[in-house]
Amino acid sequence: MTTHPTPAAEQPKNEALMTLEGWYVLHDFRKIDWEAWKMADEEDRQAALDELQSLRASWTQNQADKNGSTAHYSIIGHKADMVFMFLRPTFEELQEVELAFNKSKFADFTIPTYSYVSVVELSNYVNTPGEDPYANPQVRERLYPELAPYKHICFYPMNKKRSGADNWYSLTMDERRTLMRSHGMTGRKYAGKIKQIITGSVGFDEWEWGVTLFSNDPVNFKHIVYEMRFDEVSAKYGEFGDFLVGNLLEDDALVKMLAI
Amino acid sequence: MTTHPTPAAEQPKNEALMTLEGWYVLHDFRKIDWEAWKMADEEDRQAALDELQSLRASWTQNQADKNGSTAHYSIIGHKADMVFMFLRPTFEELQEVELAFNKSKFADFTIPTYSYVSVVELSNYVNTPGEDPYANPQVRERLYPELAPYKHICFYPMNKKRSGADNWYSLTMDERRTLMRSHGMTGRKYAGKIKQIITGSVGFDEWEWGVTLFSNDPVNFKHIVYEMRFDEVSAKYGEFGDFLVGNLLEDDALVKMLAI
Amino acid sequence: MTTHPTPAAEQPKNEALMTLEGWYVLHDFRKIDWEAWKMADEEDRQAALDELQSLRASWTQNQADKNGSTAHYSIIGHKADMVFMFLRPTFEELQEVELAFNKSKFADFTIPTYSYVSVVELSNYVNTPGEDPYANPQVRERLYPELAPYKHICFYPMNKKRSGADNWYSLTMDERRTLMRSHGMTGRKYAGKIKQIITGSVGFDEWEWGVTLFSNDPVNFKHIVYEMRFDEVSAKYGEFGDFLVGNLLEDDALVKMLAI
Amino acid sequence: MTTHPTPAAEQPKNEALMTLEGWYVLHDFRKIDWEAWKMADEEDRQAALDELQSLRASWTQNQADKNGSTAHYSIIGHKADMVFMFLRPTFEELQEVELAFNKSKFADFTIPTYSYVSVVELSNYVNTPGEDPYANPQVRERLYPELAPYKHICFYPMNKKRSGADNWYSLTMDERRTLMRSHGMTGRKYAGKIKQIITGSVGFDEWEWGVTLFSNDPVNFKHIVYEMRFDEVSAKYGEFGDFLVGNLLEDDALVKMLAI
Amino acid sequence: MTTHPTPAAEQPKNEALMTLEGWYVLHDFRKIDWEAWKMADEEDRQAALDELQSLRASWTQNQADKNGSTAHYSIIGHKADMVFMFLRPTFEELQEVELAFNKSKFADFTIPTYSYVSVVELSNYVNTPGEDPYANPQVRERLYPELAPYKHICFYPMNKKRSGADNWYSLTMDERRTLMRSHGMTGRKYAGKIKQIITGSVGFDEWEWGVTLFSNDPVNFKHIVYEMRFDEVSAKYGEFGDFLVGNLLEDDALVKMLAI
Repeated sequence: MTTHPTPAAEQPKNEALMTLEGWYVLHDFRKIDWEAWKMADEEDRQAALDELQSLRASWTQNQADKNGSTAHYSIIGHKADMVFMFLRPTFEELQEVELAFNKSKFADFTIPTYSYVSVVELSNYVNTPGEDPYANPQVRERLYPELAPYKHICFYPMNKKRSGADNWYSLTMDERRTLMRSHGMTGRKYAGKIKQIITGSVGFDEWEWGVTLFSNDPVNFKHIVYEMRFDEVSAKYGEFGDFLVGNLLEDDALVKMLAI
Repeated sequence: MTTHPTPAAEQPKNEALMTLEGWYVLHDFRKIDWEAWKMADEEDRQAALDELQSLRASWTQNQADKNGSTAHYSIIGHKADMVFMFLRPTFEELQEVELAFNKSKFADFTIPTYSYVSVVELSNYVNTPGEDPYANPQVRERLYPELAPYKHICFYPMNKKRSGADNWYSLTMDERRTLMRSHGMTGRKYAGKIKQIITGSVGFDEWEWGVTLFSNDPVNFKHIVYEMRFDEVSAKYGEFGDFLVGNLLEDDALVKMLAI
Repeated sequence: MTTHPTPAAEQPKNEALMTLEGWYVLHDFRKIDWEAWKMADEEDRQAALDELQSLRASWTQNQADKNGSTAHYSIIGHKADMVFMFLRPTFEELQEVELAFNKSKFADFTIPTYSYVSVVELSNYVNTPGEDPYANPQVRERLYPELAPYKHICFYPMNKKRSGADNWYSLTMDERRTLMRSHGMTGRKYAGKIKQIITGSVGFDEWEWGVTLFSNDPVNFKHIVYEMRFDEVSAKYGEFGDFLVGNLLEDDALVKMLAI
Repeated sequence: MTTHPTPAAEQPKNEALMTLEGWYVLHDFRKIDWEAWKMADEEDRQAALDELQSLRASWTQNQADKNGSTAHYSIIGHKADMVFMFLRPTFEELQEVELAFNKSKFADFTIPTYSYVSVVELSNYVNTPGEDPYANPQVRERLYPELAPYKHICFYPMNKKRSGADNWYSLTMDERRTLMRSHGMTGRKYAGKIKQIITGSVGFDEWEWGVTLFSNDPVNFKHIVYEMRFDEVSAKYGEFGDFLVGNLLEDDALVKMLAI
Repeated sequence: MTTHPTPAAEQPKNEALMTLEGWYVLHDFRKIDWEAWKMADEEDRQAALDELQSLRASWTQNQADKNGSTAHYSIIGHKADMVFMFLRPTFEELQEVELAFNKSKFADFTIPTYSYVSVVELSNYVNTPGEDPYANPQVRERLYPELAPYKHICFYPMNKKRSGADNWYSLTMDERRTLMRSHGMTGRKYAGKIKQIITGSVGFDEWEWGVTLFSNDPVNFKHIVYEMRFDEVSAKYGEFGDFLVGNLLEDDALVKMLAI
C-alpha cells in the first residue's frame, strides 16, 4: 500500500494474466412500485411508458451506431422487477445513460435495488508478437459485443477464493491456466445453447467478476453452473454471489408487463 | 469462465449427477400491511379479497388443467404473513402469475419480503437405456407434482459446503452417492408423515437447493431436519438458510385471517 | 435429500438424541413508533391501551386454563421496545395470537423487528420402559411451563457448530452426553437464580435453539452465559446469535411506559 | 443447556475469571432527521432544544447525586449524528432514561440507529481474603465511574475468538492471564492520554464486550488500537465490531450543532 | 483490556510500525432523491444548487488556504450518486463541514448511504535521528495532500487478515516490511497513472484502512488492484470491502448532472 523511496530486490511472485478490456458495463436492477403505478392516472402511465420507449429507441440507435449495446429483461422474484444491462465505451457514458433513466418519468415508479459496475474482459488471450489485439476483428467482437435477443438472462457476481490452503492468487500462472482450460472445456459443451459475457470488476465493484448468461431455455443456466461447480476451479476456488434471472422484454412483453 | 480457442486434454474431474427438471417454482413471501388493511374501508377490503379469491380460483383451474400447481399458506413471525408457492411450466408463466398478483388490489396491502426461484429436481435417477424418463409416469408425477392440502409448510434453502477439507464438489460421484443413500434412508422413515419437494436453484437463486416440506403435524419438520443433521452429508456438507413455517390457508382460514 | 427406490445397507451414523416437545413458542419483538404514539390524541391512546390490556387479560385467562402461557417484557436499546413470548399448544393457536395482536389498535403503533418460532424441548430424557413420558407430571411441568413474573428476561438463539474439526453433529452420542452433562453442572449452580427455557427451532427458524432466561437480577444473565462459555460444549461448539434483554411489564409498568 | 437429574463427575474445565460489575450502560446512537429539523418552525425547534437541555440538566444532577453518569457526543459520518452514553445502577433506571428521551419532543427529530447494552466490568481483580471488593474505594471508582469531559469518544464492541485452533475459551486461566498482562502493558503506555471503560455484554448484547475510549486527541484512538492489534491477545483472539467516533457536545457545541 | 496494578515482565511481541498522520478524512456518499428533485419547482432547485455551489466555493477557498482539501465526484450504480471527500486538520472541522452540508437545502434532496472516517497515513517512514518528520516538506506534502482534478475516483476499505495461519499481525516487522516492499514495487509501475491516498482507520471506522485512487483512465483501477492481488501481501493477507467508482464533478458536470 505504501510507496517506497528506494528500489528493492523484486520478490518472486505469481504473475497476473494479461487481460483485454472492452466496453464498460452497468447492470441496473429496479423494482417497480406497483402501488404507485396503479394509482397513477392512465395518462401519466402512458407518458411514462412513452418516455421509456423513447429511451429504448435511443439505446437501439446507440447499438446500431456500434457505440454500445443494451439489454432489457424482467426479473423474477422479490429482488427486482427488471434489469437494464448497459455497455458503453466510457465511465462517463455509463453514468449518462444511468442519469438519463433516473431523470425519466418512468424512473419515479422504480426503486433501484442492485447494480453492478464492470468491464467486458478477455483473459488468457494469446497474443501474436507485433499484433495489436485491439485491431483483431474477432477480439473486437468479443470486447464490444452486440447483445442478441435471447429469451432469458442470468446474472451473478463471483470471486476467486483466498482462504487458507485454497488461495487462487497463490497458484502459479501454469496452475491457473490448467484449471481454467479444463473449466473452458465444460463451457464449450454449452456452445450454441448459452451466450456468456464475462466482465471484470476488480477495482470497480464488490466482487471480482460479473457473469451474464443468455439462453433461450433457462434450464441451461442450471446445467452449466451446476456442472461447472464440479470443476476444481469452481469447487475449490469459486465464491458466488446472488443469482438473478428473468425474461426478455421486447416491446410487446414490456407493454403487457406494464398494462394495468 | 473464459473460452479457449484450442482443444485441451480433458482433466480428470468429478462428474455431475444427471438431474431431471420439472416445473419451475416461485416461492413468493409477503407481509401484510395491517395498518393499511384496517384503515381501508370495508368495501375496499371486500373488493381486494374478492380479487384474491378470484386469483385463487384461477390457480385451482390451472392445477385441474395439469398446467401447474399452487399452494397458499400463512407464515408465523415477522418474516412474512403468507407465502404463495407457484409451480409452472415456464419462466414466462412463473412471471405472469407473479405479475397478476402484483397488479391485484390485494397486493397493495402486501410487502414482498422474500422469494425463491427454483425448478423441481429429480437427481440420482437410474435410467433404463432407451427409455425417455420424461415419458415415465412415476417420474412425471414427481417432476410435475400436484400439491396436496397438508396443514403445514416448511421452506428452507441450502447449499453443499465447499470449505477447506469439507468440499462436497471434490468428492467422487461414488462418495456422494453413498452419502445421499444413507441420507435417503433417514428420509424414508418419515414416509407418510412428510411430503418433500426438492427444487434446484443453482443458476437461479442465492442457494443451490430449496426444500419445501409439508406435513399435518409441524413437529415432524423438527424431527426430520434434526435427525438428518446427524447424517454425514448434512453434518459435514450441509449449509442451511433461514426456515419459514406456517399453516394452510383454505378459504375459511383465509377469510378468518383477513377479517377485521 | 432425494429418496431412493431400492433399500441400501444402513451407514453407521451418529444417533440423534430423543427429544420431547411441548408447547410451541413465538417470541414477538416490537418497536414502538413513539412519534405516532405521541401525536395520537389522548382518547386514541387510551383506546389502544385498553385493547392491549384486554388482550393481556385474555392471555392471563389462557394461562389459568392451562392452555398456554404468555410473558410481556420491555426491551432495552434500539432493537425493540417490547417482546411478547407466547406459548401455545399448536401452530394454529400461535398464529391466532399473533394475528389478534396485529389486528389490535395498539399494534398500529408498533413495528415488528424480530421474532422467533420454536417449541419447548426436553432432551436427554431417560425413559422408563413402558412409561409414557407425556403422562409424567414432572415432564409435563417442563414441557408446558407456566411463566412466572421474574423481573428480567434474556433471549438468544444458538447453534451447535459444524465447522471443520469442530463439528457437534459428528461427535458420538456418548461424547455429546458427556459434554452436555458437564454443561449441566454449570447450569445447576444457578438453580434458584435463573429460570431457563430451552426451545428447539431446527426446522422452524434461523437457528437451532432459542434460550430464554428469566431472573430477578440481570447480572445473573452475564454470569451464567460467561461461565458456560468456558464449558467445552460452548467454547468449541456454541454459536450465538444476538442477545435481547429487558424488564417485566406488569400493569403498572406498562401504563407508566406508555404514559405521555 | 439441558439440566440433568443425576449428578455427574465434574469435567476438568477452564475456569472463568472472577469479574466485578458496576453500573449498567446504554450507548444510544441517533441520527438526526435534518430535513424535519429544518422544516420545523423556530419555536418548535426551540421547544425541542429546551426539553433536551432540561434532560441534560437532569443527567447532570443524577451524576452529582452519584447515581449514574452520562456522556453526550456527536458522531462523525452516516452511522449516527450523536450518542448518549448512560450509566445507571439498574436495568430499570437504564430503560427509564431511554424512555424519557424517547418521549421528548427532540427525540421525534432523531432515528435510533444503534445501541449497546452492557455493564461496567472489572476483571482479574486480586481479592484480599475477607475483604469486600465492593467496599474498596478504588474499586468503586472504577465500577461507578464519573465520566469526564474529554473532547473525543470512540466506541467499539469486541469478542474473543473461538475459531478452530484460535479459541480463547479453551486456553487455561494462566495462559489468558499472561496474554492479558502483556496487553495491559501496551495499555499503560497510554495512561494520561486515554481513559478507557471496559463494559461486559455477554448475555446482554451482540458482542462480548464494549470498549469506550475517551481522549483529547483522536489520533490516540488509532495509535492504541493499532499497537494493541499486534499483542497476541488481539492478533489471534480479538474480533472487532464497527468503530464509532465523535466530539464532545457541551452546551455551546450542542446549540451550534442544532442551530439552523 | 484490563489494566494491571503491578508491572509484569514484558512479553516478546511484534512491534507496530511507526506511522505519521496528517489530515483527517471523511468520505461522505449520498444518493440523490431524484423523484423529489424533479418534483421541486425550478426556483427551489436553483436555490439548492446555488447553495451547493457556494459550499463548493468555500471548500476551494479552504484548499487555497492550505487548511484542507476536498473532492467531489459522481458515483456509478445504486450505492450512491455522489461522494464528497473532505480532508481537514481536526475531527471538529471534519464534523463542521459535514454539518454545513447537512444543513444546506441541497442535502434535503440527498440520502447518506455510506461514509468513512480515517486519517491520511504515512507508514514505514525512515526517520533521520534528530529530524522532525512533520517539518520535512516532502512528508508534509503527502500528509496534507492537495487533491488534483483527476477524472475518476475509486474508493475501497481494507483489512489485513487475522485468520488461522494467515495472520498479518503475527508476522515479524521484517516479514511485514519485505511483503510491503514487494507490494510497493507493483505500485510503482503505476506512477503517473494513478494517484493513491492511503488513510488509516483503525480505531475510527469499520475497516483498518481506506484506499482512494485517482486516475484519468478507470481501467487503471482494475489493473492495479488486480495485479496487486497476486502480491503475497494481498493474496494471503488482504481483505477488501466494497469498491465505489465515479467521475469528477467540475462545475459544468455538476450543473449537467442536476439539470432537469
